[in-house]
Amino acid sequence: MRASIQKHISEHISLTSKEQSYFFSLLKPVELQKKDILISPGDRVDDQYFVVKGCLKAFEIDAQGDEHIIQFAIEDWWISDFKAYYNKIPASLYIDCVEDVELLKISKEDLENLFNKVPKFNRFFRIKLTNAFLSMQDRILSALDKNSAERYLDFLATYPNIEQRVPNYQIANYLGIKPESLSRLRRKLTKEIS
Amino acid sequence: MRASIQKHISEHISLTSKEQSYFFSLLKPVELQKKDILISPGDRVDDQYFVVKGCLKAFEIDAQGDEHIIQFAIEDWWISDFKAYYNKIPASLYIDCVEDVELLKISKEDLENLFNKVPKFNRFFRIKLTNAFLSMQDRILSALDKNSAERYLDFLATYPNIEQRVPNYQIANYLGIKPESLSRLRRKLTKEIS
Repeated sequence: MRASIQKHISEHISLTSKEQSYFFSLLKPVELQKKDILISPGDRVDDQYFVVKGCLKAFEIDAQGDEHIIQFAIEDWWISDFKAYYNKIPASLYIDCVEDVELLKISKEDLENLFNKVPKFNRFFRIKLTNAFLSMQDRILSALDKNSAERYLDFLATYPNIEQRVPNYQIANYLGIKPESLSRLRRKLTKEIS
Repeated sequence: MRASIQKHISEHISLTSKEQSYFFSLLKPVELQKKDILISPGDRVDDQYFVVKGCLKAFEIDAQGDEHIIQFAIEDWWISDFKAYYNKIPASLYIDCVEDVELLKISKEDLENLFNKVPKFNRFFRIKLTNAFLSMQDRILSALDKNSAERYLDFLATYPNIEQRVPNYQIANYLGIKPESLSRLRRKLTKEIS
């Protein structure tokens, strides 16, 4: 499990073996099965999760009972109810497993200790958060002025190879379109490409 | 101009006077007038901007010629076409001045040097980016499942006291509602409060 997070970290910072051991000591493995729920609204959120294997989704259920998918997370992504995690408030999101998953979790407290003891992790998380911020902004811009075909292509670029792993109705939900519209869109794009 | 950014920084990190002088040497003042355009699509974006005074907005114009406001920036906010800035690609956004503004700009190159020479700035920008990421996520959640009254209250919480500074039609645009709906909403909320 450690090899994948080691590779992920080393893309941005170099660690001594002592720093690496310390970092690994803070990560706790979590294994869940497809359809298991990781976080529910109201939960206390002590941890954020690095995805070693599998796929999860974060979603809200609105007053009408409709589900809205905000984010998928696949290998090398971090997922949590970040607002609850960073601000120490109860969760407002659901996070569940689209597939069986292997995760590594780190608590807020351990992360703060890590920043103090190995300050170069500030650099690592600054870069990850810059990317997360930019992809969120893309999602807003996408929703504001792109048509559904463009939004679908953005989705495929953000989550390479996820298409075979996530049911159609969930992708349609993420895109804010009906499942029938997604099928039509796919047929159209396949025709254009072939 | 320096006092406000000094205060802003010292909320998260402590600098020696030498580090502070070095940081200040990288900041260049920019003064613009109401309606001036800071960034247009296609521009090369070398800088991000700290707002000392005034208000700006970032927006897109879609294929139908409709404007979509993505972000306002007031005192103590940073603004730029961040995607263009971080990825060294041409701008896709417009940024213009809602009021006369005083800004301090820092180039991508100088920022990278700053991270290398004074690594604690990684901590500062990690915290700022965490907040920016969370407010972007709020904006997405807001759009997905909140009604316009809730979105308006979120807007007021994000930009305290901005209401008197920005024309109604721009606030309505940011919220994705018609100016008439915004006026109705305000009357309703005023009635409920009084």
